[in-house]
Amino acid sequence: MLIVMEDGASEEDVARVVAQIEAMGYRAHPIAGTTRTTVAVTAVQGPLNPADFEGLARVKEAIPVSQPWTLVSREARVGPTQVTVAGRALGAGRLAIIAGPCAVESHEQTAAIARAVKAAGAHFLRGGAYKPRTSPYSFQGLGEEGLKILARVREETGLPVVTEAMDTETLDMVADYADVIQIGTRSMQNFPLLRKAGRCRRPILLKRGMSATIEELLMSAEYIAAGGNQQIILCERGIRTFAAHTRCTLDLSAIPAVKARSHLPIIVDPSHGTGRRDMVRFLSRAAIAAGADGLLVEVHNDPDHALSDGAQSLLPDQFAGMMDEIRAIARVVGMTL
Amino acid sequence: MLIVMEDGASEEDVARVVAQIEAMGYRAHPIAGTTRTTVAVTAVQGPLNPADFEGLARVKEAIPVSQPWTLVSREARVGPTQVTVAGRALGAGRLAIIAGPCAVESHEQTAAIARAVKAAGAHFLRGGAYKPRTSPYSFQGLGEEGLKILARVREETGLPVVTEAMDTETLDMVADYADVIQIGTRSMQNFPLLRKAGRCRRPILLKRGMSATIEELLMSAEYIAAGGNQQIILCERGIRTFAAHTRCTLDLSAIPAVKARSHLPIIVDPSHGTGRRDMVRFLSRAAIAAGADGLLVEVHNDPDHALSDGAQSLLPDQFAGMMDEIRAIARVVGMTL
Amino acid sequence: MLIVMEDGASEEDVARVVAQIEAMGYRAHPIAGTTRTTVAVTAVQGPLNPADFEGLARVKEAIPVSQPWTLVSREARVGPTQVTVAGRALGAGRLAIIAGPCAVESHEQTAAIARAVKAAGAHFLRGGAYKPRTSPYSFQGLGEEGLKILARVREETGLPVVTEAMDTETLDMVADYADVIQIGTRSMQNFPLLRKAGRCRRPILLKRGMSATIEELLMSAEYIAAGGNQQIILCERGIRTFAAHTRCTLDLSAIPAVKARSHLPIIVDPSHGTGRRDMVRFLSRAAIAAGADGLLVEVHNDPDHALSDGAQSLLPDQFAGMMDEIRAIARVVGMTL
Amino acid sequence: MLIVMEDGASEEDVARVVAQIEAMGYRAHPIAGTTRTTVAVTAVQGPLNPADFEGLARVKEAIPVSQPWTLVSREARVGPTQVTVAGRALGAGRLAIIAGPCAVESHEQTAAIARAVKAAGAHFLRGGAYKPRTSPYSFQGLGEEGLKILARVREETGLPVVTEAMDTETLDMVADYADVIQIGTRSMQNFPLLRKAGRCRRPILLKRGMSATIEELLMSAEYIAAGGNQQIILCERGIRTFAAHTRCTLDLSAIPAVKARSHLPIIVDPSHGTGRRDMVRFLSRAAIAAGADGLLVEVHNDPDHALSDGAQSLLPDQFAGMMDEIRAIARVVGMTL
Repeated sequence: MLIVMEDGASEEDVARVVAQIEAMGYRAHPIAGTTRTTVAVTAVQGPLNPADFEGLARVKEAIPVSQPWTLVSREARVGPTQVTVAGRALGAGRLAIIAGPCAVESHEQTAAIARAVKAAGAHFLRGGAYKPRTSPYSFQGLGEEGLKILARVREETGLPVVTEAMDTETLDMVADYADVIQIGTRSMQNFPLLRKAGRCRRPILLKRGMSATIEELLMSAEYIAAGGNQQIILCERGIRTFAAHTRCTLDLSAIPAVKARSHLPIIVDPSHGTGRRDMVRFLSRAAIAAGADGLLVEVHNDPDHALSDGAQSLLPDQFAGMMDEIRAIARVVGMTL
Repeated sequence: MLIVMEDGASEEDVARVVAQIEAMGYRAHPIAGTTRTTVAVTAVQGPLNPADFEGLARVKEAIPVSQPWTLVSREARVGPTQVTVAGRALGAGRLAIIAGPCAVESHEQTAAIARAVKAAGAHFLRGGAYKPRTSPYSFQGLGEEGLKILARVREETGLPVVTEAMDTETLDMVADYADVIQIGTRSMQNFPLLRKAGRCRRPILLKRGMSATIEELLMSAEYIAAGGNQQIILCERGIRTFAAHTRCTLDLSAIPAVKARSHLPIIVDPSHGTGRRDMVRFLSRAAIAAGADGLLVEVHNDPDHALSDGAQSLLPDQFAGMMDEIRAIARVVGMTL
Repeated sequence: MLIVMEDGASEEDVARVVAQIEAMGYRAHPIAGTTRTTVAVTAVQGPLNPADFEGLARVKEAIPVSQPWTLVSREARVGPTQVTVAGRALGAGRLAIIAGPCAVESHEQTAAIARAVKAAGAHFLRGGAYKPRTSPYSFQGLGEEGLKILARVREETGLPVVTEAMDTETLDMVADYADVIQIGTRSMQNFPLLRKAGRCRRPILLKRGMSATIEELLMSAEYIAAGGNQQIILCERGIRTFAAHTRCTLDLSAIPAVKARSHLPIIVDPSHGTGRRDMVRFLSRAAIAAGADGLLVEVHNDPDHALSDGAQSLLPDQFAGMMDEIRAIARVVGMTL
Repeated sequence: MLIVMEDGASEEDVARVVAQIEAMGYRAHPIAGTTRTTVAVTAVQGPLNPADFEGLARVKEAIPVSQPWTLVSREARVGPTQVTVAGRALGAGRLAIIAGPCAVESHEQTAAIARAVKAAGAHFLRGGAYKPRTSPYSFQGLGEEGLKILARVREETGLPVVTEAMDTETLDMVADYADVIQIGTRSMQNFPLLRKAGRCRRPILLKRGMSATIEELLMSAEYIAAGGNQQIILCERGIRTFAAHTRCTLDLSAIPAVKARSHLPIIVDPSHGTGRRDMVRFLSRAAIAAGADGLLVEVHNDPDHALSDGAQSLLPDQFAGMMDEIRAIARVVGMTL
């Protein structure tokens, strides 16, 4: 149930409605929009009666939600969410490009790539300190050492940092260093991790699972939102299909599908979504043309010696060339970088 | 094996090499490029020895092909193929938009839609006279009556006509009326039909099967080419996956994948690829941004009463609005309409 | 709509009802069961009113069908269909094993394999004279020569013959030689072929398409039944998925799914369903345990030199060993061979 | 690299070889078989030279492993692994049936179901205390209270308990109560959890991810084995495909595929694998016929009021009827219950 407050309702009005809802035994989540506030009611087993809420003071109307997600639903907010990190906005018309190496390997490597992607116009630096790897014998990331490198490179370049947290035990430490915390495709339904991310003070970049439906992606976002953190960026990164010419099949229809159902922004990862360097440029352009709010792109200055995912990383020059095309397409579809 | 002729080789030189190859017991297919001619050697069970061919007069070199397709391989031609229909080109930098109703229902309906899409900038008219329908009790198309309507609307509007042939028995009749013959997704591996299309004098629009790999799509094109018809346009139209928010999952990575392997042009069908009117615009833009050579779009002036696929057909106004964006994105990626 | 006749209704009674239904502008299909006759009404655009039919003489009741298939629906018949070929039954408790080479290569090869599979207990001989092949340069089958070999081997061994027809042009010729006509996975939605098979006097073995749903499989069977041929055997042969350890993923849940929706028998092809000889035995056992009405198995006496699909063909000894297990499992699930 | 010890090698001989391998900078994992011991060498970046190991005392031979998993590979052990829990064996010819409710709801419900499944012949009790749920608003399990109920019911019935651990934080507590710890499909690539399970003293039941390949499943098992825990049971539970007549598509070819690659046992979950009560019986029979080492089946005494997954739970009577068929099929394929 979504409780829409009257336009001029004050913070006190909202707080009183929240208290009244919680007194009924539900949970209340105020969602502040630009023009009005909505209070979502959750933790409900059966159907609710709008009349029970419409009598509360300064409440304009109560709207039942038909889909199983509430807080991230399109109805919960007037207009799309814009996530702002260190002064840089993403969503609601602002396009953000997140680029960097798959894994943080050294300060030298990370700093060189960060300078290159910044020069080409990237807005955020990506790089994994904790790496989920299929094999226990593969390079698993530098851990906290990697986080420290990322933080140092942020100071040197000014680029905010996006990096992955893999479990509840290290989430707080990652939050200490990162500007945005990534929850990876294999963790999209790691519900304890999602719940802890909901109590975290950092924006969350939530990647779609390789076999997740749009509904499941939004329900996982709802876990985070229900915990109190509504700064969520979704990410399409390819799904598992029979088609073997790419590592995954990038499902760009996820972009309009998410926007029709949710106020959250959605970006695209063409690097994991194809697994092939020679396709990243084409699918990046396509993602922006389809309405994505940003890109998550792997760039490496020496991909042949990368410790992970070299085959899908762009060279800095390729990235710079692609950025010119991205800027032009963004203009066509009414986005600003 | 591909036999590359010297740059100045004459038609007689090529004809002599063709005769010599056929005398060895193989089939020879001359593929004329803008600057030189290649002769493909097929109908071969085992490996061939380049030396057997490099001694022939005016032969520059003989190149073994590693992939199972030969005639449609990228190596078989210098540069991409451009298919020209009634003075309108598609491929090699020229973008073509094919639009119209799913099924031809009447002259009035077809003519109205044709005028609307032409006014919005479409280059070809699509419309089914023979319709492959899952149910034997659904509308199966008007048959020859539908073909006559298409031909009449072509005369009235000047738009060349693209329409489907479903079997070997009616292919010749479809070829009598159509400018481009479509082979649908359910027929991609109808090998007798492909073979007959190879002997046809019309360009063929070959749609990817719902569970076909890129390799299988190219092998089906090879059937047509091996029959002597090299005017082939491929079409990505979505694959079957677990994702249920769209009817199929449009695989835009097929575009760079085809272009890396073949000289044939590839277009995209966002209508069948999503099955949802509200997504066509976004995926159409994405297809062009990804490098597609064209679009195949369903447009209907009264989709709620369409005899098939109304839910995925654009209204004429929606199509016109989309065309403006398509034109702008085409410019960014270096295509001309 | 299904019109259930009273138990003692005579052929004349049924004929009169058929005439009355057709006089209303519909098509009527009598389906004779062991205890009573049902008349299916098709070619209907909108909903029908049971009352319009329940007044007809000797009609017990009129049952609207909710699913889009009518003639092959479970409701259309009391109990499952049993297809009988040359005295050998399949379905309704009788298990039938169809075995033989992928392709007919020579009389010697076909006869040797036929004798071996007959000795091991097979009931039908399979073998392709027309082969759908991904590549135009692969062996395409011996054509009519292959059909003649199959007919000769049938005379020598007494095994009825199952072989594929690929197009409407050769269907009649295949029907002249074959006891059961196979429509292959790539032809499951070749609607002109299905329609012609509906007018054919031979039982049809219809294989599920690689990306076909159960609903689509049943609708394709409905095409055949609507043409007047209700001797239809369905076949699960694996679907396209991301899993690459087999050529396709055999979907044994198709067996109970079909039986819940249709009176038609369903068999399983573990050879194409896995593409691997070492898996055929395990999945054959599983298919029978899941309730399949039979198996379609590739057996070759010299698989390393087979002209097609050698890697998935059992050796005659392996087939014989498997048959012992099949017989024992059939007993457990109440089937007789 | 696998170091095969001579047949009569003593524990001291093995310990000395282990020490020598670790002195070289690698990790050594002794794997005791019935007739001989193998020592697996892991934590290796590049290729190893067998000659470096074959000179060690009492070493028979050193075998390089080509696949990326070592400890769980078929070559690492003579014969299949048998996991024994509280005196009850699973694998290597012993079939085990694990049955019970999806979620533990109360002592009364759990005890009633446990008694029923025990009477029907089940060997283990399953039941979730921590439930991974798509929605944050769904019943999430009773937590430790549920674990206590399971332990009490174990005492009452003698059935060992299988229950899921969802995160590293509660794994130890689950291990305190459970006999076998389940790692669910959504956690198959939760690498921190796998690593901690590797240090756990309980057998692990590892379910295949919904979009995991066989290789990825084995690599996840390798994580657990590399941590020191080689008591691992794999579980096929269905994969995501386009087919919508079941919740997932049960991939029974996973059974022979795993057995060809690994010494670990594999069981099947037909409840989640189909999501439909009316299919569980058929797919359970098929799983055993295909060679599975056991079943994981949901049984509920009041499925219409179950707090999760009621639609796929068998009634106790249905489970008992199925067990008779399972026993008969097990005999055919040479398994003992």
